[in-house]
Amino acid sequence: MNNEAIFSRVPPTELAQWQALEEHRAGLETTTILELFMADPDRFRRFSVCFEDLLFDFSKNRLTDRTLELLLGLARAAGVPQAIEDMFTGKRINWTEDRAVLHVALRNRGNTPMMTDGEDVVPGVNRVLRQMERFSDDVRTGRWKGHTGEPVHTVVNIGIGGSDLGPAMITEALGAFHDGPAVRFVSNVDATDFVEATRGLDPATTLFLVASKTFTTSETMTNAHTARRWLLEALGDDAAVARHFIAISTNFEAVEDFGIDPRNAFEFWDWVGGRYSSWSAIGLSIAIAVGYDRFVELLDGAHAMDQHFRSAPLEENIPVLMAMVGLWYRNFFAAPSHAILSYDQYLQRFAAYFQQTDMESNGKYVDRDGQRVAYQTGPVIWGEPGTNGQHAFFQLLHQGTQMVPCDFIGFVNPSHRIGDHHLKLLANFLAQTEALMCGRSEGAVRAELIKSGMSGEEIEAIVPHKVFEGNRATNTLLFDRLTPRCLGTLIAAYEHKIFVQGVIWRINSFDQWGVELGKVLAGTILREETALLEGEDVDLGAHDASTRGLIERVVKRMSRQSG
Amino acid sequence: MNNEAIFSRVPPTELAQWQALEEHRAGLETTTILELFMADPDRFRRFSVCFEDLLFDFSKNRLTDRTLELLLGLARAAGVPQAIEDMFTGKRINWTEDRAVLHVALRNRGNTPMMTDGEDVVPGVNRVLRQMERFSDDVRTGRWKGHTGEPVHTVVNIGIGGSDLGPAMITEALGAFHDGPAVRFVSNVDATDFVEATRGLDPATTLFLVASKTFTTSETMTNAHTARRWLLEALGDDAAVARHFIAISTNFEAVEDFGIDPRNAFEFWDWVGGRYSSWSAIGLSIAIAVGYDRFVELLDGAHAMDQHFRSAPLEENIPVLMAMVGLWYRNFFAAPSHAILSYDQYLQRFAAYFQQTDMESNGKYVDRDGQRVAYQTGPVIWGEPGTNGQHAFFQLLHQGTQMVPCDFIGFVNPSHRIGDHHLKLLANFLAQTEALMCGRSEGAVRAELIKSGMSGEEIEAIVPHKVFEGNRATNTLLFDRLTPRCLGTLIAAYEHKIFVQGVIWRINSFDQWGVELGKVLAGTILREETALLEGEDVDLGAHDASTRGLIERVVKRMSRQSG
Repeated sequence: MNNEAIFSRVPPTELAQWQALEEHRAGLETTTILELFMADPDRFRRFSVCFEDLLFDFSKNRLTDRTLELLLGLARAAGVPQAIEDMFTGKRINWTEDRAVLHVALRNRGNTPMMTDGEDVVPGVNRVLRQMERFSDDVRTGRWKGHTGEPVHTVVNIGIGGSDLGPAMITEALGAFHDGPAVRFVSNVDATDFVEATRGLDPATTLFLVASKTFTTSETMTNAHTARRWLLEALGDDAAVARHFIAISTNFEAVEDFGIDPRNAFEFWDWVGGRYSSWSAIGLSIAIAVGYDRFVELLDGAHAMDQHFRSAPLEENIPVLMAMVGLWYRNFFAAPSHAILSYDQYLQRFAAYFQQTDMESNGKYVDRDGQRVAYQTGPVIWGEPGTNGQHAFFQLLHQGTQMVPCDFIGFVNPSHRIGDHHLKLLANFLAQTEALMCGRSEGAVRAELIKSGMSGEEIEAIVPHKVFEGNRATNTLLFDRLTPRCLGTLIAAYEHKIFVQGVIWRINSFDQWGVELGKVLAGTILREETALLEGEDVDLGAHDASTRGLIERVVKRMSRQSG
Repeated sequence: MNNEAIFSRVPPTELAQWQALEEHRAGLETTTILELFMADPDRFRRFSVCFEDLLFDFSKNRLTDRTLELLLGLARAAGVPQAIEDMFTGKRINWTEDRAVLHVALRNRGNTPMMTDGEDVVPGVNRVLRQMERFSDDVRTGRWKGHTGEPVHTVVNIGIGGSDLGPAMITEALGAFHDGPAVRFVSNVDATDFVEATRGLDPATTLFLVASKTFTTSETMTNAHTARRWLLEALGDDAAVARHFIAISTNFEAVEDFGIDPRNAFEFWDWVGGRYSSWSAIGLSIAIAVGYDRFVELLDGAHAMDQHFRSAPLEENIPVLMAMVGLWYRNFFAAPSHAILSYDQYLQRFAAYFQQTDMESNGKYVDRDGQRVAYQTGPVIWGEPGTNGQHAFFQLLHQGTQMVPCDFIGFVNPSHRIGDHHLKLLANFLAQTEALMCGRSEGAVRAELIKSGMSGEEIEAIVPHKVFEGNRATNTLLFDRLTPRCLGTLIAAYEHKIFVQGVIWRINSFDQWGVELGKVLAGTILREETALLEGEDVDLGAHDASTRGLIERVVKRMSRQSG
């Protein structure tokens, strides 16, 4: 356990730039973004960066040249450039678990060696990629046969957290490219998830991918065993398991015990964090859905962003800019949350995906010295696709009492062209960031109401409600089209953003100790519930009265008949 | 426009109880919830309320008898009891739109008269309910025939915001009761939404429900016209429209112009707000999916909660308690967001639904006097179902730097009983609120690590990361089973919670002026985009440089070929 040089020796709040930013922020208090635009005709050009077909526009933010200079100075002083190198060179930057963090190696399409502990991980990565290529091809072409000799019609991925949300989000995001078997996902231990995901499926044409690093994750193994029973009830023969289950895991022994042929187990490594694992064999369902070549395009896009992140000067470095603008609001404006608003229905789950990745990475209060931080770390991440959100929570974005910085993600060209749908979608996409920034003044509202013929008294009563203060901050990420490559670029940009923020906050973005306690307590309660239902005496005295009362109520009111 | 007596004459911050709460909060600073449990063996009983099969447990919160006394005193001083009466008696409490707010009349199963403006609305409600009963029966039994004489296999609801999310959430929530035609939803103007929702459907067996109060909502009418073309391309004959489209609207003229038989138009009223409209004909897709009788059970449940809300003393009034506990954190602990965590996969969209309802209702900074409020109003609402969330953002709930009060919603009995899935789900449900409150001390972590054989130096480095501070606040809502009735109860409780908070914040929870500006600007940009694509000269000078630059980029990079 060694957090080496990646973190600044002192908390960020003690760095000169942090203190300068606090003063600078006070000076910006009364300046609106719109005023900044009026003062600088070149603002859009200067506060936007192009990369491949992505335009990252961060000009609609409460910042100036001086802000950016200080923010990037903070990043330098906090050791961001060195931390980036440490990640790419396989240092054990996940220091609480004593591991390297090398999801960038999974998409290292340049095939340059990537070392950790003196070992090049690239040959192993390429070996598993070849295995994925062969296997996904076999399933897609029908060469892979089920136990009864039929090809696969539906693939069901069983996993949870990082072994579910990434492939589920990406498979949906690439819906326009989906030309392989249907893919479904089971994650929740709630039996409803399994029942609904397998509804209407024929076991003879169904293939399960069981994704669990340790092959012991409670939810995943519960669902996997239910799937095994579901299959065997239909097909009768234990040998069927080997033709209908494959595993993505590091625990080959448990995989074999389950009945899976170890040749159909896909390896990954302890330097791949769950929430950064869609690029590994965890992404097998993606390759089956859209084909291996498109999966490689996804990797290509991420790799291109990796190179940009590693080599671009901080001033033009998109993940660094995303991180620093976010940190500006989080730490200097106390913005508690950040909304991700994708103007593409296929990106329906994109915000939920980064809700996981970001909040599990940076929702932490212990710094590299084991001290409680004296500043805010990770925000709550949330969002729904536009235009839907406009008819819902956008009210609060425009006229609520709290600041919510937003990312607007859009695409010049549609996945499906029908009439003027896409022009309307884009008009809304563009209008919202304009409306959030510009607002609408009392004068404009009053003029409009007078024009509508409303009486003076009525006007005065309604005016305040129709005023928009504006000055709401947004980023715009505009791509030409939602392709596998651009999706890879986009995901990698957010991944690196999270890392940069974690470096400045001096937290380990790659562990997740905070999810452990609940698992331990759930184990205890499961044993108690089970014993109580079997009529045993159980002493619940170690629980608080609420937990005890709830356990008792559950046991008392649980019906013993089938549900 | 008249906000009558429903609001306190003075801002809540000027009420004695508010000021007392501020002092009281300071006194509670160093007391943990766990200490409150240790000091009071009766705490669970005293801070929980039963209603039908619901147990609402709010004992795991940072509050005492005195807190509750002050909070309920605040509710009284702010005029909550009178406001409740004003709503139920049809006063025009939506004062900026000069309308009554009578969604409670839609589920008025007691059939007592409910008046607004001297008119009883109940006969009209019952007339539309009978129309819904007949129509949903006809569709479910196959008596309703499409243009080619075939029965309906799939119903596609076209709506957005309140005309989409409510029926979509409820239809999914009642998945275990779904025995009618398949139901799909199209909301986004992104063509992808239409393409994916109609994928694989046969126009001859598809019925569209077009839900738009005004029948002019841009997204909805764009999708409706696309649906019309999709149908007519297959069936050829304009007369088919009347057999494959029905409308839910107040604008019968526009409905008829579209080609819909006015007899197949379902009325609703201006006293039904979009986000409170699932109980009206907007819920037709629900009745078709699960049957009219179960739709009525949903109404029954909501009605039971309405009566409870209207008649129960504040001390036992579940919506009032939910509201005041939420307000306690929002205004006295500055908690910016609130998580809704449903431990049932069928409630997957429940948090998204109340994200809309709550944030659109209370995301407002202008009070009844037209002044900017000097306190926080509506929080950001977010959440994903458990156990999935545990493998994602729960890290931040346990170890993040910001307070996120949470509602945990669970069911004693499962919708589908398979093995021990449900016992495991419940064990997790119960363990999380315990873990969030109790945490894990340094001593406990150290003892565990010593037992595991770790060396002293390693132990000291890892201990801080495995400590959980605890003292995280949660509510538990535990029902016996997810039925239509309990779902109605649950939704109504949240609706009323929002109303109570709005009353205390002195904002109008029933308008949504904040969504207007974006619509207006989108109209302008749509005209500009269209003209530019047609090669016309357009002066974009009224836009800021960023919006202008983005419009230019869109037009320049848009491919003219099909997508």
